Amino acid sequence: MPASVQALLHYPSLKIILVGDNDLIVNQLKQLGQPDHPRLSIVHADTNIGNDERPSQALRNSKGSSMRVALELVADNKADACVSAGNTGALMALSKYLLKLLPGVDRPALVSALPNMYGDAVWLLDLGANVSVDADTLFQFAVMGAVIAEEQMERQPKVALLNIGEEEIKGNDLVKRCSEMLQQSQSVNYVGYVEGDQLFTGNADVIVCDGFVGNVSLKTSEGVARLFLGKLKDALFSHPIKKLIAKWLFGEQLMALKHLNPDQYNGASLLGLRGIVVKSHGGADVAAFKHAIAEAVHEIERQLPKKISDRLEAVLLERHI
Amino acid sequence: MPASVQALLHYPSLKIILVGDNDLIVNQLKQLGQPDHPRLSIVHADTNIGNDERPSQALRNSKGSSMRVALELVADNKADACVSAGNTGALMALSKYLLKLLPGVDRPALVSALPNMYGDAVWLLDLGANVSVDADTLFQFAVMGAVIAEEQMERQPKVALLNIGEEEIKGNDLVKRCSEMLQQSQSVNYVGYVEGDQLFTGNADVIVCDGFVGNVSLKTSEGVARLFLGKLKDALFSHPIKKLIAKWLFGEQLMALKHLNPDQYNGASLLGLRGIVVKSHGGADVAAFKHAIAEAVHEIERQLPKKISDRLEAVLLERHI
Repeated sequence: MPASVQALLHYPSLKIILVGDNDLIVNQLKQLGQPDHPRLSIVHADTNIGNDERPSQALRNSKGSSMRVALELVADNKADACVSAGNTGALMALSKYLLKLLPGVDRPALVSALPNMYGDAVWLLDLGANVSVDADTLFQFAVMGAVIAEEQMERQPKVALLNIGEEEIKGNDLVKRCSEMLQQSQSVNYVGYVEGDQLFTGNADVIVCDGFVGNVSLKTSEGVARLFLGKLKDALFSHPIKKLIAKWLFGEQLMALKHLNPDQYNGASLLGLRGIVVKSHGGADVAAFKHAIAEAVHEIERQLPKKISDRLEAVLLERHI
Repeated sequence: MPASVQALLHYPSLKIILVGDNDLIVNQLKQLGQPDHPRLSIVHADTNIGNDERPSQALRNSKGSSMRVALELVADNKADACVSAGNTGALMALSKYLLKLLPGVDRPALVSALPNMYGDAVWLLDLGANVSVDADTLFQFAVMGAVIAEEQMERQPKVALLNIGEEEIKGNDLVKRCSEMLQQSQSVNYVGYVEGDQLFTGNADVIVCDGFVGNVSLKTSEGVARLFLGKLKDALFSHPIKKLIAKWLFGEQLMALKHLNPDQYNGASLLGLRGIVVKSHGGADVAAFKHAIAEAVHEIERQLPKKISDRLEAVLLERHI
């Protein structure tokens, strides 16, 4: 809620529809001193989808839930994008069901921009929307990842497949077949394979893998980052005087280390749908949730679903020449 | 070579056979001041397997290579274990071909002990021996991982499957089926799923996944660790005086951070074979290579292949009751 109010200040033409329990929202807006913002409206929803509901269960029982009502607003062109911090599995299933896939897309993919060692972004997908995919789907992920990165970087991004060896000889069949497809394509600046230790080295701007591998890799990164930051804090702040010196001498640089935590970046986008859906962390703070809203605004401005659809059409044409 | 000499000093009954070019080894031993160690012998090998050879190619052209000769010594009971820093794919293929699999094992697995946040070990497998497996194979990995961990920890280790969600509802079919098998087994202390961010939190002592996921996860950990250590060095050592203060005040604690790098731990074991094979990093230094030799000694003392075979037999019996 406070993130929405801040986002309205930041984007003078942005309109936000808050979907959920009307009374609850009205109360919270009053507390924020924003009972009647002209660009903020409320659409009431009776229920919520729980975080532990299975996607199939959520799909069946979703009528009237805030997530479904919000997605219906997008499906009915009453909203340009949906931002949700709810149940990821349910959001993916409902988005696919209500918004439908773009032509040429077999599966949606969850993508997020993470910070690399140079402070640039690296897009990793799929982060868990699909645990098992075929080479065609992986290829589509590469194309969609290239489009979202290009819209942000404004140059042609380097696209790589995540594999377990740099040489052509390694990896599983799926990855090998997708690699051949990418090599033959003119639409993607394919740079080959990267391994897990090259996620953040700038070798690639877009890194593509199936949802199981991507989710494990992202979570592993977050886990190691948290482990290091925790141990570092213990080491530097082990004594009040040491803490003081550490903050005085190294405060700024150490703050910069925090930004290496992939967890800091909020707003994973669901790609491949006829509409814009951004997933925020469940535990996102105001700044993080504002970041997710900013991502949605950016994708609206860039007309991302149309760009993806156009690129996939070009790829199809390329194959038929 | 220096690692072998040090290991001989450390283990008074250890005998080491160095396999490779005889003249080269003799020269290096002279340089180390150990021309005639009574527990060090040399077996000549004409060739080496290159690091870029494919496993199938290496298998065909392996006759007379140092790796093959060393493994033949194990197969012929002339050595109790083989330690190699060579081509991983070739080592796995040749080991399987020359040493054969234990009864009840469909595929060998590569396992390594990594340091968790409490300084305890966590065993992760498979690290890349098999990119695609079935539920039975994954189950065997869990049993083998439990045995190697138990021999080190001397208590029943907690075994988990690496998945993309903590709840039973997530993950792919393979992982779900293996989870059901583990739940029904009395031979493994199965604690359920862990996610990538719980690799090092002590939730589990043994973490099981397929070789693609395990390799990506391990390499991702190494990459993030290197990234953090690099940035930390930049931050603390940005100025000579700052460097001095940092080393003086925080030197010891910061050295401890280095040990969080999974890369520090050397010696991955190939499990499931009728013999002991330990893979060292290609770029291992003396201490790291000595660590790999120590792992081999430990596995010989504990008769690891026999223990694995016994446990797998118990599991088979359990299923037929």
